[in-house]
Amino acid sequence: MDAQTCIRSKRDSRDYAEAPISEETLQGILQAGRMAGSSKNTQPWAFVVLREASGKSELAACGQFAQHMPSAPLVIAVVLTPDGGAFDAGRASQNMMLAAWAEGITSCPVAMHDQECAQRALGLPEGHRVAMVLAFGYPASEKSRHRGIARTPMAELVHEERW
Amino acid sequence: MDAQTCIRSKRDSRDYAEAPISEETLQGILQAGRMAGSSKNTQPWAFVVLREASGKSELAACGQFAQHMPSAPLVIAVVLTPDGGAFDAGRASQNMMLAAWAEGITSCPVAMHDQECAQRALGLPEGHRVAMVLAFGYPASEKSRHRGIARTPMAELVHEERW
Repeated sequence: MDAQTCIRSKRDSRDYAEAPISEETLQGILQAGRMAGSSKNTQPWAFVVLREASGKSELAACGQFAQHMPSAPLVIAVVLTPDGGAFDAGRASQNMMLAAWAEGITSCPVAMHDQECAQRALGLPEGHRVAMVLAFGYPASEKSRHRGIARTPMAELVHEERW
Repeated sequence: MDAQTCIRSKRDSRDYAEAPISEETLQGILQAGRMAGSSKNTQPWAFVVLREASGKSELAACGQFAQHMPSAPLVIAVVLTPDGGAFDAGRASQNMMLAAWAEGITSCPVAMHDQECAQRALGLPEGHRVAMVLAFGYPASEKSRHRGIARTPMAELVHEERW
């Protein structure tokens, strides 16, 4: 897929088909996250790949809006090391979600409202935290592939030189 | 440019040619940021476009590693509204930097260590803050186009099911 088309057409969706994601495609998604830029190239992240039902369910219990998460064939928890920041986690996550979308796979970030619960579920070392959990899957339907979610008009969004 | 190539080959760089960025290309970059997904589709951001030397210099004084910033022909400050989070700012920023890279334009995020200074320089409303400032420009040289910055080996980065 063309880069501009991929970036502009990506919509977050929580409706996934059961079809599994191939190992090759998974490696491509992880590689996209791995190559993301970060503050001083600290790469302050690690990725925990979850595909087993029990692990996905245990983690889903740590978020308030995560009920759909176990239905995703692939879940990747984006973990930040002690000095890492959420901005960099957002960069790596967007890279992974765009790389997936270029292969026709939709996704949605899932927040972990109970951070201790998520750290325990994943067995994280001291000081590491879950920045976000990403759910991936092929779209359940044409509707979930092309969701028409409104965006702020450009004129309201952009300021020239100063606010 | 192909999406996967764009995502994998993008490197942050601070060495910019003087060549200006066209209005059409700028609109494409802003559109990429505008279309980014965000928590509950709150789109908690605004973009301040700076191209005049005085504004870029005033903002550069608010960051500890921002000396190069005025040399960038295009600067976009990513502003978060009061309820916005840095993860979403990272998603929108990565979209803009990838859309630029697909047109051969390199970029680098610049942190504003003195947040009050940056808010004042941009004239932000109460409660708004600068998540990050993005500097954009065509690469100054082939070297700055293809920087060989090392990444963590995949085997250290990825965990299966649990840490």
